[in-house]
Amino acid sequence: MKHLKHIILASIFFSLIFISCETSIKETPNTKTVTTEIDPLPSWNEVTSKSNIITYVSDVTNPESKNFIPIKDRIATFDNDGNLWSEQPAYFQLFFVIDKIKLMADAHPEWKTEQPFKAVLENDMAELGKQGQRGLLQLVMTTHAGNTTEEFKSEVQEWVKTAKHSTKNVTYDKLVFQPMLELLQYLRDNDFKTYVVSGGGVDFMRAFVTEIYGIPEEQIIGSRIKTEFDYNNGNPVIRRLAGLDFIDDKDGKPLNIQKIIGKKPVFSSGNSDGDLQMMQWAASNKYKSFMLYVHHTDSVREWAYDRKSHIGRLDKGLDQAQKEGWTVIDMKNDWKVIYPFELN
Amino acid sequence: MKHLKHIILASIFFSLIFISCETSIKETPNTKTVTTEIDPLPSWNEVTSKSNIITYVSDVTNPESKNFIPIKDRIATFDNDGNLWSEQPAYFQLFFVIDKIKLMADAHPEWKTEQPFKAVLENDMAELGKQGQRGLLQLVMTTHAGNTTEEFKSEVQEWVKTAKHSTKNVTYDKLVFQPMLELLQYLRDNDFKTYVVSGGGVDFMRAFVTEIYGIPEEQIIGSRIKTEFDYNNGNPVIRRLAGLDFIDDKDGKPLNIQKIIGKKPVFSSGNSDGDLQMMQWAASNKYKSFMLYVHHTDSVREWAYDRKSHIGRLDKGLDQAQKEGWTVIDMKNDWKVIYPFELN
Repeated sequence: MKHLKHIILASIFFSLIFISCETSIKETPNTKTVTTEIDPLPSWNEVTSKSNIITYVSDVTNPESKNFIPIKDRIATFDNDGNLWSEQPAYFQLFFVIDKIKLMADAHPEWKTEQPFKAVLENDMAELGKQGQRGLLQLVMTTHAGNTTEEFKSEVQEWVKTAKHSTKNVTYDKLVFQPMLELLQYLRDNDFKTYVVSGGGVDFMRAFVTEIYGIPEEQIIGSRIKTEFDYNNGNPVIRRLAGLDFIDDKDGKPLNIQKIIGKKPVFSSGNSDGDLQMMQWAASNKYKSFMLYVHHTDSVREWAYDRKSHIGRLDKGLDQAQKEGWTVIDMKNDWKVIYPFELN
Repeated sequence: MKHLKHIILASIFFSLIFISCETSIKETPNTKTVTTEIDPLPSWNEVTSKSNIITYVSDVTNPESKNFIPIKDRIATFDNDGNLWSEQPAYFQLFFVIDKIKLMADAHPEWKTEQPFKAVLENDMAELGKQGQRGLLQLVMTTHAGNTTEEFKSEVQEWVKTAKHSTKNVTYDKLVFQPMLELLQYLRDNDFKTYVVSGGGVDFMRAFVTEIYGIPEEQIIGSRIKTEFDYNNGNPVIRRLAGLDFIDDKDGKPLNIQKIIGKKPVFSSGNSDGDLQMMQWAASNKYKSFMLYVHHTDSVREWAYDRKSHIGRLDKGLDQAQKEGWTVIDMKNDWKVIYPFELN
C-alpha cells in the first residue's frame, strides 16, 4: 500500500505539473505565444488508440468545435475487472470469497464435507468450477451477507492490505493498469466525470478503489445484494441480506446508468462482451461519443485472452468494435507498462 | 418559465456577488482585514433555524474546527415534495397522472365506464380516493410506462410548461420554496454536494428540476419503475415497464442513499415521516450532522398541516425532532417569502 501511495502521490504531483505547464502564455502585441505541452498519457506508446483519445478529448472540449460537449454532460463510464485492473486467473473478488470462507471455516466444521465449501477449503478449483453459478452464489452470500455495510467495508479493507495474487505475488490493489490511471486523470483534467460501472460488487469496490482511481464512492456503480435498514435503538445500521438486488452486467449496465446517472455516457470503456450494451448506449449519444475496448493481448506482462475466455470474454464486442470503428487497445503494443510498479 | 428563469438568473447573479463579496482582503503589515458579509439566506427571518444552519455550516467548513468535514464527505440530501416545493392538495406528480389520463382518454373509450379511469375523467376525487393504492398504481403505470425514457422526459417537460396549479394558478415549477433555493445554493457555495432524495419518480423529477434547483440529474434520487434495454437495431432505447422497481420512501431513503451515494449524509432535510429514516441515518454520521424539518404552518401563504395529514404527515418525525433537538422550520414565522414570485 505504501508503495502504491507513493505512486499515486507521484501521479498527482505530475498531473499538477501537467496542469500548470499546459497553461499557455497569452499573446500580447510584443510577445510570442509559448505553449508547453506535457504528454497526458506517458505510459502509452505513440499508437492509434492514444491519438484517437487525445483527438477526441481535444475536439469535444473545444468551445469552438461543433462537437463541443457542455461539462455537465461529460460522463465517462469505465468497467473495472479487466479494464482498470487485471481479472485473471479469476475475478479478484472471488479470491476475497475464498479467503473469507477459509477464515470462517473454524466456526463451520460441517464445511469439511459440504459443497461448495469443501472444494474451497481443499483448494479444489476443478470441483469448485463444477459447483456452477448456484455454488458460487452460495459462497458469495455466505461471505458478503449477514453483516452491516460498515463491517463488510472493514473486512474488505483488511483483506486488500494483506492478500496477495498467486502468481504476481503483490497485493491485488497493485494490479491496476497504469495507462488507465493516466486516462482517468486526463479525462478529469478535461472536466469529465469519471464513473466505474462494473459487474463487481459495489460495496466491495467502494471499500478501496476510491483511493486508487481517484473516483469518489458516489461515482462507483456495481452489482448489489439486498439490504435492510435497522434503526437498532438509535444506532442505525444497514444490514446486508442473502439475496441478489441487481446484477450490473450486460443490459444491467445501461439500465443502472439510467437509474443512477440519468444521462448517457459520452465516453465508455470496457474489455468484454459484458460491456457491449454500455458501449452501444454510449454510441447512441446525441453528442460525439468515444467507445474504447481494452484487448488483452499480452501473455507475458499480463494475460492474453479474448473470444474463448470464460473470464472477460471479448467476442461480440470485438466484432462490433471492428465494424463500428471503435477504438481497441492492443495491450501488448499500446502500453509501455501495465502496472504502476513497473514504472520504477 | 421565463419569469422563473429570470429569478433563477437573478439568484445566480446575487450568489455570484455573494461569493465575490465574501472574499476577504488578506491582512498585510500595513492594511486591515476588510470582510464584507452578505446574507446567504436573505428570504429567511432572523430566526433560530437560520442561525442554526449558518452556525453549523461555518463550523464544519472551518479547517481549524474539531468538527471540520472534508469536502468529499459533505453530502446533503433533500426530500422534494413539501420540502423543496409544495405538495397540496396532492403530490404534483398526481396531477401529471390525471392530466395525461385525460389526454389519453380519446384512444380509450372504455375508460368512460371503467375505474379508476372513470373517476379521473369525471374529476371525482372522492371516488378516486376510494380506488386506493391499487387504483393509483394502475393510473401511474398507465401514464408512466409503455414508452421510452426519452419520450417520457419530453412529455413531462411539455406538461410542466403548461399545466397550472388549481388554486395558485401558476405552473407547478413556480411553487418551489425560495428560502430552500437559497439554502441549496448556500450549501453548494460551501462545497456541499446537494442531492434530492424523494419518494417522487426519479425520471419525473429529472425532466425539469435540474434547472430549477441547480442539481444535476446524477444527484437526483427517487422512486423508479422497472425498465428494459432494447438495442432496437442500432437505435438503443430504455423502455419503461409497468412494474415498480424501487420505492424511495421511509426505509427506502437510507437504503437508496447507500446504494447510490455509498456515504451517509451530513445534512438532511425533509418535511414528513417518510423522511424520518433518512434523518436517523444522517444523525448517526460520525461527523457532526444537521437534521432539518420543514413544518407546514402557513395556512395563508402555503398550507398548514402536520400530524393528521394524509399528504406529508409529520408526526413521529416531529416527536423525534423535538426530542433530539433537530432544527424545525416554522414556515409561517421563519420565511419572509414562500415562492420566488413573491420576491417581486
